[in-house]
Parts: sequence; structure tokens; C-alpha cells
Amino acid sequence: MRILIVNPNTTASMTATIARAASAVAAGPTEILAATSSMGPASIEGYYDEALAVPGLLAEIAHGERNGADAAVIACFDDTGLDAARALATIPAIGICEAALVTAAFIAQRFTVVTTMERSRIPLEGLVQRYGMHGKAKVRAADIPVLSLEDPTSGAASKLRSEIARALSEDRSEAIVLGCAGMADLVSELSHEFGVPVIDGVAAAVKQAEALVALGLSTSKRGAYAYPLAKPYIGALASFAPAVLAL
Amino acid sequence: MRILIVNPNTTASMTATIARAASAVAAGPTEILAATSSMGPASIEGYYDEALAVPGLLAEIAHGERNGADAAVIACFDDTGLDAARALATIPAIGICEAALVTAAFIAQRFTVVTTMERSRIPLEGLVQRYGMHGKAKVRAADIPVLSLEDPTSGAASKLRSEIARALSEDRSEAIVLGCAGMADLVSELSHEFGVPVIDGVAAAVKQAEALVALGLSTSKRGAYAYPLAKPYIGALASFAPAVLAL
Amino acid sequence: MRILIVNPNTTASMTATIARAASAVAAGPTEILAATSSMGPASIEGYYDEALAVPGLLAEIAHGERNGADAAVIACFDDTGLDAARALATIPAIGICEAALVTAAFIAQRFTVVTTMERSRIPLEGLVQRYGMHGKAKVRAADIPVLSLEDPTSGAASKLRSEIARALSEDRSEAIVLGCAGMADLVSELSHEFGVPVIDGVAAAVKQAEALVALGLSTSKRGAYAYPLAKPYIGALASFAPAVLAL
Amino acid sequence: MRILIVNPNTTASMTATIARAASAVAAGPTEILAATSSMGPASIEGYYDEALAVPGLLAEIAHGERNGADAAVIACFDDTGLDAARALATIPAIGICEAALVTAAFIAQRFTVVTTMERSRIPLEGLVQRYGMHGKAKVRAADIPVLSLEDPTSGAASKLRSEIARALSEDRSEAIVLGCAGMADLVSELSHEFGVPVIDGVAAAVKQAEALVALGLSTSKRGAYAYPLAKPYIGALASFAPAVLAL
Amino acid sequence: MRILIVNPNTTASMTATIARAASAVAAGPTEILAATSSMGPASIEGYYDEALAVPGLLAEIAHGERNGADAAVIACFDDTGLDAARALATIPAIGICEAALVTAAFIAQRFTVVTTMERSRIPLEGLVQRYGMHGKAKVRAADIPVLSLEDPTSGAASKLRSEIARALSEDRSEAIVLGCAGMADLVSELSHEFGVPVIDGVAAAVKQAEALVALGLSTSKRGAYAYPLAKPYIGALASFAPAVLAL
Amino acid sequence: MRILIVNPNTTASMTATIARAASAVAAGPTEILAATSSMGPASIEGYYDEALAVPGLLAEIAHGERNGADAAVIACFDDTGLDAARALATIPAIGICEAALVTAAFIAQRFTVVTTMERSRIPLEGLVQRYGMHGKAKVRAADIPVLSLEDPTSGAASKLRSEIARALSEDRSEAIVLGCAGMADLVSELSHEFGVPVIDGVAAAVKQAEALVALGLSTSKRGAYAYPLAKPYIGALASFAPAVLAL
Repeated sequence: MRILIVNPNTTASMTATIARAASAVAAGPTEILAATSSMGPASIEGYYDEALAVPGLLAEIAHGERNGADAAVIACFDDTGLDAARALATIPAIGICEAALVTAAFIAQRFTVVTTMERSRIPLEGLVQRYGMHGKAKVRAADIPVLSLEDPTSGAASKLRSEIARALSEDRSEAIVLGCAGMADLVSELSHEFGVPVIDGVAAAVKQAEALVALGLSTSKRGAYAYPLAKPYIGALASFAPAVLAL
Repeated sequence: MRILIVNPNTTASMTATIARAASAVAAGPTEILAATSSMGPASIEGYYDEALAVPGLLAEIAHGERNGADAAVIACFDDTGLDAARALATIPAIGICEAALVTAAFIAQRFTVVTTMERSRIPLEGLVQRYGMHGKAKVRAADIPVLSLEDPTSGAASKLRSEIARALSEDRSEAIVLGCAGMADLVSELSHEFGVPVIDGVAAAVKQAEALVALGLSTSKRGAYAYPLAKPYIGALASFAPAVLAL
Repeated sequence: MRILIVNPNTTASMTATIARAASAVAAGPTEILAATSSMGPASIEGYYDEALAVPGLLAEIAHGERNGADAAVIACFDDTGLDAARALATIPAIGICEAALVTAAFIAQRFTVVTTMERSRIPLEGLVQRYGMHGKAKVRAADIPVLSLEDPTSGAASKLRSEIARALSEDRSEAIVLGCAGMADLVSELSHEFGVPVIDGVAAAVKQAEALVALGLSTSKRGAYAYPLAKPYIGALASFAPAVLAL
Repeated sequence: MRILIVNPNTTASMTATIARAASAVAAGPTEILAATSSMGPASIEGYYDEALAVPGLLAEIAHGERNGADAAVIACFDDTGLDAARALATIPAIGICEAALVTAAFIAQRFTVVTTMERSRIPLEGLVQRYGMHGKAKVRAADIPVLSLEDPTSGAASKLRSEIARALSEDRSEAIVLGCAGMADLVSELSHEFGVPVIDGVAAAVKQAEALVALGLSTSKRGAYAYPLAKPYIGALASFAPAVLAL
Repeated sequence: MRILIVNPNTTASMTATIARAASAVAAGPTEILAATSSMGPASIEGYYDEALAVPGLLAEIAHGERNGADAAVIACFDDTGLDAARALATIPAIGICEAALVTAAFIAQRFTVVTTMERSRIPLEGLVQRYGMHGKAKVRAADIPVLSLEDPTSGAASKLRSEIARALSEDRSEAIVLGCAGMADLVSELSHEFGVPVIDGVAAAVKQAEALVALGLSTSKRGAYAYPLAKPYIGALASFAPAVLAL
Repeated sequence: MRILIVNPNTTASMTATIARAASAVAAGPTEILAATSSMGPASIEGYYDEALAVPGLLAEIAHGERNGADAAVIACFDDTGLDAARALATIPAIGICEAALVTAAFIAQRFTVVTTMERSRIPLEGLVQRYGMHGKAKVRAADIPVLSLEDPTSGAASKLRSEIARALSEDRSEAIVLGCAGMADLVSELSHEFGVPVIDGVAAAVKQAEALVALGLSTSKRGAYAYPLAKPYIGALASFAPAVLAL
């Protein structure tokens, strides 16, 4: 089984972190294929970056599917481009936010997502609502830029810890969801430190991808996720015309 | 007052229809600036087209704002790229779906959105939920391709009429919302024919844009719609780096 | 275009404030017709006052419509008598709460309504729910009697400022909605002071009224807003019998 | 114990029907005081009639409370003026819609309210939402004028039966709620005929009123139902000034 | 009229408290039959105890119904086994949580349930949601073991008072619901002390039971509450086979 | 990894079907331990059977955990006793309904659960609501007794097919969820026949169990799922006292 993990931002060092987290939980026979988007922003912080990251993400998914991937994981907690990816691909596509929330709900009734920046808080509240988790999950921002997670001297981990502590005392949360793919390598240490389950979306999504493949399930093409219709695409994105991209 | 209306698909004849509908309702002193996206799909039918239409849309909005537009209308009923546009622009950005639903709710308690293709029905149900209208609005699809609305021999108008009739009898709707920018020139005729208010999103959005400008209001930059952060963008979309785009 | 604005309380000085706010944003060709109710309470503070203000409000709307008004605005933030007014009138009727919330949602994802008295907080939460804004809007009361807004020595404006400050810090709101028609003349000054969009319902409703008239839309008479049936009315309100009132 | 039942329309024959239904279920020591409103419409069919019925209703409640009533029931299924009545009165005020829905929910998970006219359907759907019953209750209209229920030759009862039959087959309802006070005397016969529980709001409200009185509970005056503030009231409703009405 | 009240825990002293509260509000002709479960936990604190209390509860209800009870009250605030009881019994079954919430909603728009232990808070939030009260009711835990309510030296009543005080100031609640059957004898004293309505579920449920019996209503057997089907039951619970239990 | 699958009814032949479905999707190193409850009903059809199945289920889970199971699956679509199991066990506990709904939501936006009997429809609608899926999932009953699924001559499979066909045409569903553990062996054949994804909860739950174990996650013991408190249990269920059961 081959699982493609696309980092939809263009920072390769973050892809490495993500790939490590994915490989650590993958089943023996699973091969992790990590890809960094080759077009778009260096990090995804808010709606604008998110929108511009989608074409590069879709290109990686189309490329990965042609090369034999059995499922695709989108490794940004905004579930960037998830619906477009599901329409495009034949293989199942999993967002790390959806995977993390679903996983948390199997082991806790109330939990908090701790994300990076305030500007990402409301988009994530939108996802919490979309996935039917608004009665269970709160969202908090630790006020740390995404790429500061790559820099051990930035103080980001310390701010993250403070926000987790607040979630446990003020929200009375039973578990913590890490709200950024760049936090993936902190999961074990935070879990031991706080004594509650801590969920990383990258790892959670790998297991959901393995599950769907093992169950022989893929995106339904009846309804909202029908394949894109062949039609003219022009300009810098002409190569994304459905008929072309599938080549 | 100058109101920019962006057709986020690349079909100029549809832009002409949209511009006509906009001009017909604009106040005397309002100048309508209609723009056709120069990159992306010829029509927007489903999530994939929608995602790929966003960069071209954003480019038009940035360009229009630099050239003095006071507000921007996104003339696709999926409210394509609305959040990214609001983050990017200083001027207010209005989606025609939100404008149409809000307008309908001032004059009816129950109404039906009639859109083009089944694959757009569920995305629109998502917008209905987002705008808090799920207790008031239903969504139906007339099973007509978007561009068939441009072709009087396609039978599209007839299918649209049949679906409106079903909405009135089966949903007991009090008003009809036309769920595609390409239907804008049918509004008056359908309204007379069916004897209920019929709302076109393009016209509705022009009036909302005029309202916001007259009230001196624009998108709050405190929170989810803060300006995009300056950061590296690479590849085909490098010119969309926030620092560059604003030039 | 003539827009009737009815102050449903009987305090003429508040009508003057309202009329000023309305005229300040009205388009050039729009004529503002401000009317003070001639029966009922001097201010509307809670459910009881609200109920007793409705007959006087309806009389003004019927009178205004007979005299050529193209739309009616109800200038109390409780949207007093809105449903009855829509059933009675042929012209569209707009409540300032609905108009303000809708306007705020075009420019912010999270906002706070700051109203006068605690006893009005829960009725306004009911309206927030009715208009589908409960995921976006909070309601706060500044603990100031309505008519104290007319008296510069009352300290009301200062209490209002304090509550706005709390909304921004505690609710992390992106915009403020003024929750009383009597606050209409503070909008510009508060907006500059706090650096976020501040929305006044009177001004917002004038623009919605202009929009509906320009779009040729009025209340659907199919369903809940069908015209009242002719029937006997007796006692002090006999003159409100539908057949009589329309004379 | 004395329970006041106010018929907020001005048709005394309907008050007689209501009083009979109330007396039939009242406990031994309970005295039923039935009052007909002396101002307003002959029947309540839609928002307009409802609004105009409120002053007369409030006058009866104030009068009844002064004369020793221990609780008040508002005998119109729109729960006409309920919030204003709760603010005004010291004794508890019960609407027959709320009482009927609550009663139905104790004995069934899914039920249908069958009301009179289509124009009342959406107002009742609003109440269903307000009382938190939207996951359990549907609303149907039998298309019968309220006062036709008084006339055995009108065919109203037959239309009501047809609509109940549709509710049982199409909604798979487990119980029926009669959505008009004027249907109160049909409850026993319909229950036997259809073999499911049939709930009449008048009877249900009498029992809720007895319950609240026996429990020593009355409307909380902390918050939304605080007593109306003393203030000037002018015009035809001047006698409703809180300070005056309490005399 | 005979009303069975089952204490689903096995602590007879708590049954005595419950019976006293029930008798205090029962109508003259009502006979209160209090039963203590003879199998299961000594107190119900959380999901596990709740599940194990159900068989003993059902046995008492079956026994009570055979002996002529007209209605059954389940005297644990978790509404333990309510759905199973409704399916089993012909007589109506009332949970004290549902009865208390419904009663509170007749006299207040916002109220707080104060329960015993934190582990019961989330199950009660689930009930609040089930009964459609999530817009009106908050749940707080006073951090007191259930049986400590039986011991005047435990400090439980003092902790309960502190939590009520917090509910009034922080939640701005208009009424308090006591969230444990074991608090039933504190209702009058707390009501006087805090000056707001205080609702005890046991008393509230007795009145709802009387109401349903007086109205001639019982659980609908059409749908989810159809009688259990005859089928083999084995092991320690074999005597609960529907065919057997009814003997 | 050892995954315990408990059939909470006492019919061993159904356990065999379940075990087969589980083994078919289990990863190589996973050992499936299938257990049949030794007390309670032969099938679970409605609330009463469900409640009586819980003690036997809990005993199997306690026994399985002592014997080294790493996770437990509850193989009844009512998610029978799920909350009590999570409180009792240290290992994660997964219900097949939650697992199936979550799995379906990764590949479809609208889907239908097809269950056995009408009396199970409403309990499943309750679960759909609990898991936040009410905007996505409908529930239908094929009107087939659970154990008829074991009998190829019963016509059950044919009725199931008819109901699936109705779901696809009337609900416009994109995927089907089989709403009974006893349908597990039909999944592949139905999927091919109808050309849409068909999800079996048993298989889905096995993969979720594997995922949680691989991620090192188990039920949070902070909050609603804290371990049951040691306390006296009496009667036929005395052996379920938390202190005893853990032995």
C-alpha cells in the first residue's frame, strides 16, 4: 500500500517533519510517499495562502495517483483543497483536520484544537462545524507563526504548552488536538507531559488512509465529488484542465 | 462609486450578461466595471473548477482595487474564493450567493435556490448552512450545464422553469433565488411568469456593494480577514505573493 | 424613492436622531419620511413595551404606504412587529436588527451586538438565532436606559464605550453592531475610536430598503406573509381591522 | 386554585369550547376562569391578527391576576403575546403550544402538529424551533379557517381527519398535536379513531398551570421577564402603561 | 391515581428523601408508591453506574405496573433507562431531568442545572441537547459525591450553594435546576435563599405524571417505543425476556 | 495487536458472521478475538433489548481486556453500551455505528444508513445526531427482523436491496451504510450491484481500532469517561461492582 502525503506549502523541511510522523505510525507494508508542493506559499496562514496553495496541491495529487498511490493525505490542518482533491482523484483523499477530529471523538467527549495563529482560528472553527464537532471541540490559537515551529529558538513550543495548559483548565478538555502539521513531532512529548491524549492529524490521517484502502473504499463519484468535466482552461492554469491533468 | 464585478470563469459572453444585469440595477452615480478572469475554467461546475478559478479571480480583484474600485462582487453563485478575496482586499467583497440569500430573507420566510447542475447542489447547501439560512432555503438543481444558459436552443430555460414550478408546489416556497450568475437576464420574465419574487444574485450583490460603500464600511482586518502576510511564493503562482500582488 | 422610517416608540426626539442617521446615508434621490408612533410607550425596553408598540407602528406603516412610501424601516432594534408589518404592507418592511446583522456578516466573521439594557439581551439573542447568526454574533448589554442616550450628562455613552472595549477583548470581535436605534449618531465616532467597523442598524436598513426597491422586490404574499384576512375587529383596536386599515 | 384561561380572540363561542376542554381535565379543587378578549380580531390567523390580539389578551391577564387567578393560560396555538404576558404578570403564564409540545415529547419521539391554515404553518414552525422541538415535530395545515371549526357543516373536521391520516403515513408520526384551541373538543374522538395519542393544547396547558402552582413556581423576574418599567404610554393604549395596568 | 417513583440506585435512605419530596407536591387523590431498586449500584455517578442500574429499574417498573401504578417516575437526574422503560411499560414513564428542564422553561429563558460530580456534567449536557434545551440551559457540577448529600456533615450543601451563586453571577441565570434526586429536600430553602425559582426534578416529575394520567395519555406504541418483541433472553437477565417480565 | 469484537446479542451464529467480516479486513498482524455475550437478548431490536444487552457486553469487555485485548469493538449498530464501556475499559472502545458514519463521511457528502426494523430507525437517528452527522446522513429501515438476516429464505436481503434502491433515488445518496452488524457479509456484493460505496460498520470499526492502537491512543480518563468509582453493587449484578469486575 502506498500513501501519498502532500505538504501543500512549499517548505521542504516541514515535509520532512510530516514524513517522519507519518512513517512512525504507518503499518509495516505501507510505503509513505511524501511530496512538497512546487507552487504556492511557503506556509499556510489564513484564507489567502490556503487558496493559493490549492493548485500546487492538486498537481501533486494527480501526479501521485498516476504513479500508483492508493490514497492521498493533505497535510495542512485547514484541509486545504480537500473537496477539489476528492472530485479530481479516484483514490480517497483525507484531510488531517477531519482525521484528527474524528480520532479525538473516539476517545474523548470534549477536546481542544490548539493551532498556530489567531487568523487560523476561525477557519478551523468552520471546519469543526463542517465535520459536526461543534458540540465537542473548541479551537485556540497559540499565536505562533507556522514556520517558527521549525526553529527551536523561537519559543513556539513554549507558547504551545501554555495554550494547552489553558485548554485543560479553562475548557476542561479531555484531549488535545494539535492544529498544525508542523507540530507533528511534538505529540509524544506533549502527551506524556500533560497526561491526556494528544492527537496529531498527520498520524491520524495515515491510519484513516490505510483503513479506507484496506476496506476497498474510495470517494463516491455520485454527487458532489463527480469527476471534473472536460472543458477549456486558459492562462497560467491551463495545464489543470481536467482532461489534461489526468494525462 | 465604482463597483468591480468579476466573472471568475473565463467566458466573456457570460461576463456581458452579468454586466447587463448589474448595470440595470445600479444607482445613477455607480459605475460598473466588469472583468473576466484571464486564467482558469470556462465555466464553474463543482469543487474542482471552483478551486482553479480562485487565482484568476484574485488577480482581477487586486487589479480592480489598484484601479480605484470601491467594492468587488464575485459573480459566481458558489461564492468562489470569497474568503481569500476578503483577506486580500481593502475594499469590501460580496459573493452573489450571500447577497441573494440575504435579500430573499427580507421578503420571504421560505425560498428555493434553483441552480444548474446536481454537482453544484451540495456545495450550495454548504453555503446555505454557512450563511445561517438552512431553516429557510432549499436547493434544487435543474440539470443544465452552465454554458447552455448562453444558448437559446439548449432547452435550459425550459428545464429551469420546470424546476421552479416544482419548488413552488413541492417546497411551498414563497420566493425563488436563481442559483447561477448566468441566469441573471431571466429574472424579470420568471418573476412575472410565476407571480412570486425572483432574486438574481448579481443584481442583489450590486446593491449590497453600493450599500457598504455608502455606509463607509469595509472588511474588518481584525481576525480571520487580516491582510495576507508577506512571505515567499514560488512556481507558476509566484506573482501572487502578497507583497507582489499589491504592487 | 420614498423610504418611511417609523420610530415605534413615542419619543419624537429619538425620531429626530434616527432621521438624521437615515438622511446621512440615503442616496441622492431618496426621500426619508420619518414618523413617530402616536400610541404606545415612550421607549421600548423588553417584551411588554415591544408588544404594546406594535399597533402604533402598524398604523404608521399603513398610513405611510397609502401616502406613497416605497419601503418601510422599523427603527427599533427588537425588530418590533416586523412579521405583522410584512403581512400588512405591500411595500417591503425592514427591521434594523436584521439589516445590521446582515451588513456586519458581509465584512466580519465574528461580531458583537451591544445593546442598552440587560432585559433586552435575551430578546436580541432570539433575533440573532432567527436570522441564522448565532455562530457569528454575541449580544451584550451596556446597562443603560434607552432614553439616557438622549441625555449627554447621563454617562450612557461612556458605559457603551466600556462594553465595546470588553466585546473586542473578551469576544475577540471583528466588528461592533450598535443594538439600539438611539445610538445611531455615535457610529462614526465609535468607529474611529475603536478602529473596527461599527454598524448602525438605521443606516443599514435604509440601504437595504433602497436595495429592495431598486430591485423591484417586495414581500412575497405566498405563505406566511399573505395579506391579513378581512374579519371583525372590536374594541379600542377596531380601526385595525384589515379591511378598515387599508382605507 | 384558580386558573385563568384567556381566549385572545373575541369570539365567545370559541371561549365556551375552550372552557369545556379545560374543565374536563382540571383537578377537583381547580376553578377554571375563562375570559374572552374584549378587543382585537374575531379569530387569529397569521402574524397580523396575532399582533393585534396582544393588548386585549394582556388586559385580561392583568384583570384576572388582580382578581386572584393563580396562573394564566393563553388559549391560542400561536402562543400569542406569551413573552409580554410573562413580563407583565406575577403568576405563571402558559401558552398552549408550548404545553402541547412538551406533553407530546413525554410520550412520543416524533409527532405532527396539525393546524388550521397554511399561513399559520410557518409561525408554528418558528415556535417548534423556539421550544427546541425541531428534531421531533413537524407542522401541517389542514387548510380550514379557524371559525369553520365552530360550524359542523363546514367540512372542517373532515379535512382535519385527512391531514392527520397523511401525518401518520407520510411523517410516520407517533402522536398528533391539535394545532388550534378551537379543536379542543375533538381530541377524544380523534384519539380513538386513529389509535395514537392526540394532544390538545388547552387541556395540556391547564395541567401545566396546575403543576406550576402546586410547585410554588412562577416566572423568574431576573432577566428577560423582569416587570415592565414604569414609563409614559400615550394614545389609545395609554391605559396599558405598566403603572396604570397594575391598578 | 397511583404514581410509582423508582429510585434506580439501591440506597433506601435516598428513596425516603425522594418519597418525601414527591408526597409534598402530590395532589390530594394521588398515592405515591416509592420503590428502591434491588439490584445495581448504591449511587449513580457516571455512565457505568447508569448502565448497570437499568435492569433493576425496569424490574421495578414492570412490578409497579402490574400492581396498578398509573405512571412511573425515574428518580435519577440522568433519566436512567428512560427509553427502555417507555418501550416496556404501557403506563407513561417520566424522567426527572426532562420534567425539570421543561418546568424551568415555562418560567425562565436561561437557567443552570447544578449537579453533583464533574463526571455527570457531560452526560447531562447530552440530555440538555436531547430535550432541545441547549440554547437555554447550562450544566455545572458542584463536585460532591451523590451520597454525601445524605450526610449533613459532608459540606455538600455548602458546595452546592457556592456553585448556585456562581451560576447566578457568571451564567446570569434566571432559575436553578437541582441536578440530582438527592437534592430534593433543599429546594424550598435554596429558593428563599437565592430569590430565584429553584426546580427539583422529583417534584416536577410527579406533576407531569399526574398531568399525563389526567389527560388520559400514555406512551405511543407506534414507532420507537413499540413493545419489546418476545424473544429468548439468557443468563442472569433471562427473567427480563419481554414475555417473562410482563407476567 | 489483539482486537476484541463483542457481539452484544447472544446469537453465536451472528458472531460468526461478524468475525468473518472482521478477519477479512484486519491487518496481517492483527488477531481478531470474537466474543458472544452470555447474558441478554438473542437479538437487539429497539431500546429495551439494547438496555438489557449492556451488562453482558460489559462483562465480555472486562474479560477481554484482562486477557490482553488492545481495543474493543461493540458489534451492534446501536452502539449499545458504548459510553459505559469507555468508562470501564482502559483500552479504546469503538462502536460500529460511529465507525461506519465516520468512514462514510471521508468518501461521501450525503449517505443513507439502511437498518433492519422501523423501531431501530429513531434510535439510529439519535446516534446520527450525536455524531454530528445529521446534515449528511439519513436513516431508513428495511423492515426485516435482525435474525432473518441469518436465514437465506427469509427474503431479508431482497427487502434490503429495495430499500437501498430507494435511498439512491429518493435521498440522492452517494454511499450506503449497512445499519446492522448482521449485514456484514453482504457488503461486497451490494457494493458491486449498486455501484456506490457500501460501508459495513464491523469492518470499519476494526480499522478504527487498529488505528487507535497504532497511534498509542486510548480513552481519556479526564472527564466523562473517568473510571467507575468503587462502590457497593447488589443483587444479580453485584459482580459488576467496579472493584470486582476489574479482578
